[in-house]
Amino acid sequence: MKADIGLIGLAVMGENLVMNMESKGFTVAVYNRTTSKVTNFVEGRAKGKNIIGTYSLEELAANLKKPRRVMMMVKAGQAVDDFIEKLLAVLEPGDIIIDGGNSHFPDTIRRTAYVESKGLLYIGCGVSGGEEGALNGPSLMPGGSPAAWPHVKDVFQAICAKVEDGSPCCDWVGENGAGHFVKMVHNGIEYGDMQLICEAYQLMRDGLGMSADEMHDVFTAWNKTELDSYLIEITRDILAYKDTDGEPIVNKILDTAGQKGTGKWTGIAALDEGVPLTLIGEAVFARCLSAMKGERVEAAKVFPKGDTTISDVDKKAFIEDIRKALYASKIISYAQGYTLMRAAAKTYGWNLNYGGIALMWRGGCIIRSVFLGKIKDAYTNNPNLENLLLDPYFADAIKGLVPAWRNVVAEAVRHGIPMPAFSSALAYFDGYTTEKLPANLLQAQRDYFGAHTYERLDSPRGEFFHTNWTGHGGDTAASTYTA
Amino acid sequence: MKADIGLIGLAVMGENLVMNMESKGFTVAVYNRTTSKVTNFVEGRAKGKNIIGTYSLEELAANLKKPRRVMMMVKAGQAVDDFIEKLLAVLEPGDIIIDGGNSHFPDTIRRTAYVESKGLLYIGCGVSGGEEGALNGPSLMPGGSPAAWPHVKDVFQAICAKVEDGSPCCDWVGENGAGHFVKMVHNGIEYGDMQLICEAYQLMRDGLGMSADEMHDVFTAWNKTELDSYLIEITRDILAYKDTDGEPIVNKILDTAGQKGTGKWTGIAALDEGVPLTLIGEAVFARCLSAMKGERVEAAKVFPKGDTTISDVDKKAFIEDIRKALYASKIISYAQGYTLMRAAAKTYGWNLNYGGIALMWRGGCIIRSVFLGKIKDAYTNNPNLENLLLDPYFADAIKGLVPAWRNVVAEAVRHGIPMPAFSSALAYFDGYTTEKLPANLLQAQRDYFGAHTYERLDSPRGEFFHTNWTGHGGDTAASTYTA
Repeated sequence: MKADIGLIGLAVMGENLVMNMESKGFTVAVYNRTTSKVTNFVEGRAKGKNIIGTYSLEELAANLKKPRRVMMMVKAGQAVDDFIEKLLAVLEPGDIIIDGGNSHFPDTIRRTAYVESKGLLYIGCGVSGGEEGALNGPSLMPGGSPAAWPHVKDVFQAICAKVEDGSPCCDWVGENGAGHFVKMVHNGIEYGDMQLICEAYQLMRDGLGMSADEMHDVFTAWNKTELDSYLIEITRDILAYKDTDGEPIVNKILDTAGQKGTGKWTGIAALDEGVPLTLIGEAVFARCLSAMKGERVEAAKVFPKGDTTISDVDKKAFIEDIRKALYASKIISYAQGYTLMRAAAKTYGWNLNYGGIALMWRGGCIIRSVFLGKIKDAYTNNPNLENLLLDPYFADAIKGLVPAWRNVVAEAVRHGIPMPAFSSALAYFDGYTTEKLPANLLQAQRDYFGAHTYERLDSPRGEFFHTNWTGHGGDTAASTYTA
Repeated sequence: MKADIGLIGLAVMGENLVMNMESKGFTVAVYNRTTSKVTNFVEGRAKGKNIIGTYSLEELAANLKKPRRVMMMVKAGQAVDDFIEKLLAVLEPGDIIIDGGNSHFPDTIRRTAYVESKGLLYIGCGVSGGEEGALNGPSLMPGGSPAAWPHVKDVFQAICAKVEDGSPCCDWVGENGAGHFVKMVHNGIEYGDMQLICEAYQLMRDGLGMSADEMHDVFTAWNKTELDSYLIEITRDILAYKDTDGEPIVNKILDTAGQKGTGKWTGIAALDEGVPLTLIGEAVFARCLSAMKGERVEAAKVFPKGDTTISDVDKKAFIEDIRKALYASKIISYAQGYTLMRAAAKTYGWNLNYGGIALMWRGGCIIRSVFLGKIKDAYTNNPNLENLLLDPYFADAIKGLVPAWRNVVAEAVRHGIPMPAFSSALAYFDGYTTEKLPANLLQAQRDYFGAHTYERLDSPRGEFFHTNWTGHGGDTAASTYTA
């Protein structure tokens, strides 16, 4: 019997995906570069299942139905290019190569063109949900050669997570690098969500002097509100987890965050697209700052904080204000993330389905939440929505949150508790809703020192003016040399 | 008579540099691809001067003393590579090619290695000060082949700006791309400085309802304080500049900022280095947000601001608070920029002279200021200063500014006036001086969903732990597949 799909790379993610596929009725052929892993797998977890171990790529290819579908679950980078090269030697036109790793989208754009030039089809698929998701239902974000989608749709939508009504958390994202781009933005948003929760936690810990147990209760309650989500849920559980001595283990963990680079990629993409992605940017930088632990300890001695207790507030009411600030900031973060996707879609010629993306993230992945259902609704109501803030549901929500949000940020500012994400989100909201920003002065400055010209409020857009500010500059605008 | 130096590219910057060199006693040979420009120049501004027009690169080379020094003032990008290729054909080993354009530092790293592989020397030189600076004394930031420096030092230090005591605003920066990197950071800091001034302006305009004339008086006064700088000076003058109808022209300029991309490069470099460069990041994004004018006008209708007047403060005292907030934020911006340079120096193996860089920026360039003299002092006192905030002078300064800074940001937050740079600077300060950030929770989250492990406060750094949070996860840490 030939297999429905082949999978290369038997680390935990790969193995779990294979088990997931098999459990849904698919026969899977597997290969791993270190072939002892194949033996271990087929004689171990895969024993008695419709899983075929193969010991060369030729053997893998020979065991697959046509058009062949081969999914790579290998480390992003050179290994992916190496396997593509080797696969091209054993596959044939019409076959489909799938990269399920965390590849950077420009690589996927390049690889799609390359594989298509050889007559085969390519898919770069974002996979989220970690090891457990891979086994029980991940969020899948496939993009690449559109002609490949009908051939993988059945497998992907069978193994992926499902929302309450049974909708699959997987749909076609778009051409070439679109799937990996959307996965990247997902990860950026994940950075933002985590930072927001951390700031709420810090306000309660350092501003209100609350214990991990008290905060556990707060997150338990919050998970029954609009914030209902996987990350709030695990935060609730983390805060309750005790070390062997009965102390909350979170109190013993070192406050230096690691990162794998996808948040950074998201920030770079935003800078490249010229899209203000301030919250995720701050979240990435907050991790960097946390990693400078030694310097912070020194700086804390030079600038002693004193008491950061926010004592002049009603504690219960202030906790509710923090929840509102978190929710408002979260709306901003997603609004920014979606704006980035809209800009990239224009740049790269992708026809993205924004509601579909929300649905893909609705279940299975780290940022899964009830909130994403509302985003799905917003884009179902208006697929061309310019900014999530302009959707009636979210506009109303924000309006109700603003006073609490301002209160929380102002109190944090007055008490020396850093809220980079809360406050950058608010600055974005206040900037986005300001008809006249101070950039008129900035344009005057640029024209003053660099003759960069400016537009005028009383003249049509696209008409540029230069003022000879000093009287001894020139009347001509900036030359082709651009400083 | 042979020329001391050759210059390619007779746009305004190039021409002005030639005039500057000639006025300092150097004979300059010039070439331009469109050769009619050569004729126009030698028969026009250059008439009767020690300036030799040449009409081919062969002729240019033949007219230069050895080792030949050829400076390109051409548009950054492909044109630079093209000219290098052509110059290699007419120059000989030991000659020096200089790029005075706004090249991206990775290009300069690549070009230095390439030109050196041909036996010649290369310099990538940041030039700041615009057209007027080029003529009367720019800030020059040369990096590249160290062996080239002794051959250009006399020309460069003759034509550059000088500070009060006569010190030149030009010194050797470092190997390969160091000069262009430092110029890039200069530009990023310029973005930050301009945004800070804009936020002060917006607070006075929208928060205190002040007129351009009133603000002119404020900036006049501020320029006599620690803020004494070129950008404050031109802001003062801009605010006083009247249109033909007597109205301040700044009121008529459209509030959509342009940018040329060097701020973006700085943000990307910071993300690559993992250095929190939050203020410049926000400044770049603020320009992007200003450019979304149409959307902002719509959003302002959906979210009407109401009255933004900050009425419950003493106006004069609050203006002084704004000045202090600007000054404090500016210190943060430079602290972040210098941290970025330190990180890049480590990455690229540059031996940067931080005090020397402050001196290069002290005069001639857009960010020139008295403030930079204090930074020079800080690095003279301690060349290994980890962070500008830890220098005693700036630490004392910041301590005196903090209450005003908090007050300004809190009032802006309460009144809906966006202060992305002021508030991100404050969040950075509060984070940098916090011994325990909430990243312990973030590490717990990462370990929970991705088995990324964490370090503990009660164990040595470098020892990693994993908790089986759910009881049904695994006891093993993340596999080689990194999600």
